Amino acid sequence: MSSIGQTMDKATPTESFTLVFQPSGARGKVEAGTSIRRAATALGVEIESICADVATCGKCRVLIEDGQFGGIDSSPDHASSMRSTEELWITRRTNTWRTMGLDPDRLRLSCQAEVQGHMVVFVPESSRGNRQIIRKAATDRHIDIHPAVRRYYLELEPATLADPLGDVERVSLSLVAAMSRIHGDIDWVAPEVNDIRFDFHVIRAMGDAIREGDWKVSLTVWQGHRVIDIRSGYSEELYGIAVDIGSTAIAIYICDLATGEVIGTDSMMNPQTVFGDDIMSRMAYENLHEDGLATLHDSVTSGLNKLITRALRSKRINATDVHEITVVGNTTMQHLFLGISTKYLGTMPFVPTSHRAFDIKARDLGIAINPSANVHVLPSAGSFVGGDAMAVVIAEEPHKQEENLLIIDIGTNAELIAGNRDGLVCTSTPMGPAFEGAHIEYGMRAADGAIEKLEIDSESLEPRYKVIGIEGWGPDNLGVEDSMKEGGPVKGLCGSAIIDAVAEMFRVGIIGARGHFNPDLQSERVRKGELGWEYVIAWSGETSIGRDIPVTLDDIRQIQLAKAALYTAAHLLLRELGIEAPDKIILAGAFGTHIDKTKAMMLGMIPNCPLDRVFSVGNAAGDGARIALLNRHKRMEAQQIARTIRRIELPVDPDFQNEFIQALNLPHMSHQFQAIADLIPDHGPDPMARRIRDPH
Amino acid sequence: MSSIGQTMDKATPTESFTLVFQPSGARGKVEAGTSIRRAATALGVEIESICADVATCGKCRVLIEDGQFGGIDSSPDHASSMRSTEELWITRRTNTWRTMGLDPDRLRLSCQAEVQGHMVVFVPESSRGNRQIIRKAATDRHIDIHPAVRRYYLELEPATLADPLGDVERVSLSLVAAMSRIHGDIDWVAPEVNDIRFDFHVIRAMGDAIREGDWKVSLTVWQGHRVIDIRSGYSEELYGIAVDIGSTAIAIYICDLATGEVIGTDSMMNPQTVFGDDIMSRMAYENLHEDGLATLHDSVTSGLNKLITRALRSKRINATDVHEITVVGNTTMQHLFLGISTKYLGTMPFVPTSHRAFDIKARDLGIAINPSANVHVLPSAGSFVGGDAMAVVIAEEPHKQEENLLIIDIGTNAELIAGNRDGLVCTSTPMGPAFEGAHIEYGMRAADGAIEKLEIDSESLEPRYKVIGIEGWGPDNLGVEDSMKEGGPVKGLCGSAIIDAVAEMFRVGIIGARGHFNPDLQSERVRKGELGWEYVIAWSGETSIGRDIPVTLDDIRQIQLAKAALYTAAHLLLRELGIEAPDKIILAGAFGTHIDKTKAMMLGMIPNCPLDRVFSVGNAAGDGARIALLNRHKRMEAQQIARTIRRIELPVDPDFQNEFIQALNLPHMSHQFQAIADLIPDHGPDPMARRIRDPH
Repeated sequence: MSSIGQTMDKATPTESFTLVFQPSGARGKVEAGTSIRRAATALGVEIESICADVATCGKCRVLIEDGQFGGIDSSPDHASSMRSTEELWITRRTNTWRTMGLDPDRLRLSCQAEVQGHMVVFVPESSRGNRQIIRKAATDRHIDIHPAVRRYYLELEPATLADPLGDVERVSLSLVAAMSRIHGDIDWVAPEVNDIRFDFHVIRAMGDAIREGDWKVSLTVWQGHRVIDIRSGYSEELYGIAVDIGSTAIAIYICDLATGEVIGTDSMMNPQTVFGDDIMSRMAYENLHEDGLATLHDSVTSGLNKLITRALRSKRINATDVHEITVVGNTTMQHLFLGISTKYLGTMPFVPTSHRAFDIKARDLGIAINPSANVHVLPSAGSFVGGDAMAVVIAEEPHKQEENLLIIDIGTNAELIAGNRDGLVCTSTPMGPAFEGAHIEYGMRAADGAIEKLEIDSESLEPRYKVIGIEGWGPDNLGVEDSMKEGGPVKGLCGSAIIDAVAEMFRVGIIGARGHFNPDLQSERVRKGELGWEYVIAWSGETSIGRDIPVTLDDIRQIQLAKAALYTAAHLLLRELGIEAPDKIILAGAFGTHIDKTKAMMLGMIPNCPLDRVFSVGNAAGDGARIALLNRHKRMEAQQIARTIRRIELPVDPDFQNEFIQALNLPHMSHQFQAIADLIPDHGPDPMARRIRDPH
Repeated sequence: MSSIGQTMDKATPTESFTLVFQPSGARGKVEAGTSIRRAATALGVEIESICADVATCGKCRVLIEDGQFGGIDSSPDHASSMRSTEELWITRRTNTWRTMGLDPDRLRLSCQAEVQGHMVVFVPESSRGNRQIIRKAATDRHIDIHPAVRRYYLELEPATLADPLGDVERVSLSLVAAMSRIHGDIDWVAPEVNDIRFDFHVIRAMGDAIREGDWKVSLTVWQGHRVIDIRSGYSEELYGIAVDIGSTAIAIYICDLATGEVIGTDSMMNPQTVFGDDIMSRMAYENLHEDGLATLHDSVTSGLNKLITRALRSKRINATDVHEITVVGNTTMQHLFLGISTKYLGTMPFVPTSHRAFDIKARDLGIAINPSANVHVLPSAGSFVGGDAMAVVIAEEPHKQEENLLIIDIGTNAELIAGNRDGLVCTSTPMGPAFEGAHIEYGMRAADGAIEKLEIDSESLEPRYKVIGIEGWGPDNLGVEDSMKEGGPVKGLCGSAIIDAVAEMFRVGIIGARGHFNPDLQSERVRKGELGWEYVIAWSGETSIGRDIPVTLDDIRQIQLAKAALYTAAHLLLRELGIEAPDKIILAGAFGTHIDKTKAMMLGMIPNCPLDRVFSVGNAAGDGARIALLNRHKRMEAQQIARTIRRIELPVDPDFQNEFIQALNLPHMSHQFQAIADLIPDHGPDPMARRIRDPH
């Protein structure tokens, strides 16, 4: 079968030896002469390989232990001696191995080293076929690395007059053979040679790639049977990009598809915002303009292309080395990204063109990566619960938990998912841009000069605030008492500060449960200004705009509307599940990360739940996009959930209006902080109820 | 199950009746209330349908016989009475039915008419699911109509708030249901709903198509699971184009994919000819020019687009109604058409990029038909036996015959296929353009003014010839004796006339077996001109070019080289099969059609075979492209044959040189006409042998 090492001659072809693989502990008897990698496969241990056992990629490196381990006498000498290719591979990189903590004297390529005695073999993380990466969120969570695209390195038999097989046929045969060697028997069925399909661009590039690489090529294969890239010689570079298209911002994550690591992230405003702040106004723009769809589609794709190009350049990665993109967004964003009209999505009965996931060639969409790469767009659950929500689900996995979760992804639109392993329900509600600082008199985005946190002293009614870009709390440390300076650094209020302000004003009694001002307070900050009642947070001297910065009655109304929508949606979801309160609340989205969860609960934004069971997990939709990029099985999961999740359509729920009006109160009556509200005097009739019934 | 007709009440739900379908004769018992179409399916009779039994398409119309037929008392009254939709459909078109010979009083839509008594049902050709079309060639042959693309008409349930399923999902469900109704149980497995895939352009068009058609749409489905077109309402137009890309000419056939009929044909010079006459010079052009590949690729695709556009316009067919194209050509033409370099095809060891068939989106190739349509390129057997040869095989079907066939497709390159059901062998050989009139002193293409047939009187050595565009034989009837006219209509010699000339010159003794001139003849037509020995066919007065038109010694050499290549190739193929002579010879290609087979055999172009077993079948490659367009099963056959046919590589055959030199003689020594040759005196040493060994 193979040459026996010269330093060893105790093995005979029929002899068997015990192998133990660490850290898995898998153990079994193996015939002499078997390669360690093949032995591992037989014992259910996956060891990585790109080159299919020709000692080129080195992905299958292992350490052979030296000594006694649980009765096994293991030694590097118990493996066959090295042939020249393996020796070259290992000795050339001795320093690298030491840096990585891999002892060169015990290091072997498991595809080459053959079993000649008992051995304990340690498989380092980087060699494991079932690698994981840790996603840091509420709790660390592992992402199994099983991308849809994979590299294979082939050494082809050169064509001759006696063997003039075509390139495509030659590569197909060699690829299927390599796949069989690499994946072995572990839950894997080799594709038929004729089921291997080649992207048209690969076919065009193939002749040169093969010959320039002297009959050695690296292929990128999508979903185990579609060849989407070919290049000369040995090549590892294999990147993917996860894209989260929000109504307001686009975020991208460049990932190394071999390791799963995030190599770079970048973000930008969604360039569509110039055509409307939220999804309703984008849809209106499309409908009202002849070329509305093309304009919106081009806007988001060219914006994304700029973002991708910039991020790749900063990491010195070639666009052609990006072999897949996953995209998530709400249903409207996904439609516009794909160039699909939202005409029917935005009008009764609100039907999307499709719920299912799509794989579309980057060249068809004009995305500036490898033209043969696929753009995978996650499935949607419904018209207003899109791929971003499904991404949140595969990131947070409520469908695998016993506890009932309530997940709220807050953006310009909020998506809510509730339930556990027994079933999930979802809905969505427009939030308006109030939480992002828009439609607020002095609102602004979270940028330098924005107040982001705020407290009000219940005695003096004086505020303390934290300004982005400034150490410590203001106004005391802003240096504005320095008479030489004109004004201070404050420019406005970002979303989290507005929440803080309304919650604090309510807590200290500046406003009542219905949101109106207490006119009898002894504070110069509570006053009737040009825009009606207001509470001044920063005096003009503290600001860079030369004007007092107040929170107005209208600002409070905006927050009331948004929080009422959110609360009502959550409440109706929980009712659908037949539960009073969730076991755990997860706040996702950039806003969910910055929000003070105590204040949010004080305001009645979120339902009853112990505060220590409320978690902020950051951009879970982005994480989900990344998970779908790194693990093709999770795409199936998303597709499965998208098909089975129950959707609650708020506008058609008969209780929605009533619940909503009640939820406008601070805090909501049924809320755990009702006790607080009861302590605070109410100050006469509330203009809000009238406003809701008669908008003008 | 369904309402019982009011004129009939003898049926009860459990009763059964005998149905006989004509012309197939299928017969069986069927439960009362079953639709005739469903009954037919159960008895193995396929009846066409596009609308899936909603009385819209009318494709399932049948005639119910009235009277006694083999003991069965059949009557149109034995079917349920008409509902309004069916009645409308039939009465609106009464005159059409009469024109078609279909008696309106006996006509029913078989999807609507239910069995209420015994019936004999005639299924007209146009309603048959297994339709055929006759291909006229050597013998009439039937083409079964099973195109890869098919129309389905769907009436969708409109979306509502309570049923807001996405368009893609709604259409998928409805399509699978319609497919099941239409194809029933006849060897057909319904695809999974989630296996139905939609072309990206279809997804973009879907929302409007559905609503503009008031939830009624017509789909085009490729290979039973890929939706490549959607349009509003009911639509039947479904066209395909078969394309034959020859080195010299491109021919197209526009087909109605429902009936299989050829609606129009057109052809043009291959615009690549300006870059070289034959495949070798095209390859050289590609190699010698930086943008050679792009130039050649653009040249053929833009030429084809012009041809397609012109042909469609003349038939008033929209380009978007063309849903598939099949393309055949030699391996070089196919590579260049696909934009694949021929660099490695033209150099040792002559390896094509691929042998397999391709399906490539029209938009990827830039072909001016429906952008979502597929371009199906037939598989190749090897570097120089391309898709055109495989097309000839599926047209002539040697693999299904007991007789040993030799098929010769003569063009700028000749492909030869030999064998029978026990196995096929193939090879190819460059012919040079001599047979197309090029590289011949006064050669020209088959066009007005070309001599196409020629005879020489063995006594006087005077010629008689036939000129394209002129009635009768010249030179007597050309009107050149009219002293008022200057010159005549003759412009040159086309390929068939050159064959005739060489064969006749040999027959009458103007040239000897080795092709050289007899210097001792008493004829002013045999003379030593500026270019050496020649035989004048037309005097200058008969021509429009004002010069004598001779056949020169060099012309004869060209023909000798071409015919020797052809003969040698055929001979080595037969040797490979282990047979002396084929049972039948098929001459394909335009040239094969015009050639005089007696002359061809006299010259030794083709091997021994009784003359009445030599057939000219015209453009069999074009026919094969058409067959692949109309019948997807034949594509599988082509693929299968391409994989299994044995290829003989002439240049590496040790006997090739020797055989070739021998075959230069007129006729070949081993030929059945050797007897003729023996009667004709040989005239001294032949310069040819020297010329071959020492080209200059």
